[in-house]
Amino acid sequence: MPHIDLPPLPGLAALLVGHPETAGPLTQLAETLLRGPSPLTPLEREIIGTYVSRRNECTFCAETHAAVARQLGGADGPGPDAGDGVPPGADPKLRALLAIAEKVRVDGRSVTAEDVERARAAGADDRSIHDTVLVAAAFCMFNRYVDGLGTALPDDPEHYQRHGGALAANGYLRLPA
Amino acid sequence: MPHIDLPPLPGLAALLVGHPETAGPLTQLAETLLRGPSPLTPLEREIIGTYVSRRNECTFCAETHAAVARQLGGADGPGPDAGDGVPPGADPKLRALLAIAEKVRVDGRSVTAEDVERARAAGADDRSIHDTVLVAAAFCMFNRYVDGLGTALPDDPEHYQRHGGALAANGYLRLPA
Repeated sequence: MPHIDLPPLPGLAALLVGHPETAGPLTQLAETLLRGPSPLTPLEREIIGTYVSRRNECTFCAETHAAVARQLGGADGPGPDAGDGVPPGADPKLRALLAIAEKVRVDGRSVTAEDVERARAAGADDRSIHDTVLVAAAFCMFNRYVDGLGTALPDDPEHYQRHGGALAANGYLRLPA
Repeated sequence: MPHIDLPPLPGLAALLVGHPETAGPLTQLAETLLRGPSPLTPLEREIIGTYVSRRNECTFCAETHAAVARQLGGADGPGPDAGDGVPPGADPKLRALLAIAEKVRVDGRSVTAEDVERARAAGADDRSIHDTVLVAAAFCMFNRYVDGLGTALPDDPEHYQRHGGALAANGYLRLPA
């Protein structure tokens, strides 16, 4: 049961609908980070968010963004479903960026010049490194928001696929119905 | 040295000026969380942000928000300067909210019904608990963004007092000069 009174919706949806003042800047941030201009594709950014959420063991965020990534990536895409959280189809650049995301998740100070050099050697530019760090950091916020208030998981196992489909199609500015 | 090319400004300032697309939603979020409507005073929210930043050992964020809190709290206010990060003047409600913030910082899932009950017994309502969790979670993002990209600390020890004064007076929507 959630720690505070919330609308009967799962995960972040309950928080966005129940707290519209903060929902505005939070959804704007999600849209900018995950769909705005970036050298990283929306799929790469969803994979980074899924990976961080998996490592933080935030089930709602991990399953939601895994579903978005599946919808964006198609059947041949590097889906985020592998046991260690790194998609089996991930190329060296994405692997190097996920290694940076994992450092950020644990402690921002643990990112080293070597981590960044490895990503650069695999083709990541400054903006890709910036966007990776900020996406990873933002999921550390969303994961804590969702779990810190004890939000509910969906009853319906189809929820993630349906909700992920809507996010893949419409982005993050439309509040859940 | 920062991990990416940034303007010669310390901490978050370099990131906001160097990356204006994400600066927009990030400053809107900070303004809403720290200055928008809430049963928590701006001082209480700055103390929560300072506390989380101290525990995450993010020097730039901790010193900046400690300076903002000093400006907002006046000489008699419960300043965030104590060794354990809890202001000596903190009342039972603020102490209970800081205990929740610390749980959120480590792992959102570690917040218990008892933690929330203790805050309620000390006078915190649902919105205060919500805002505490989201402020703590947001500082976990900002701390990781600032440290994950290796931003510089200010050369001038007066920087925090000056910068904190500007934030206390003007809020978070004005970009650093």
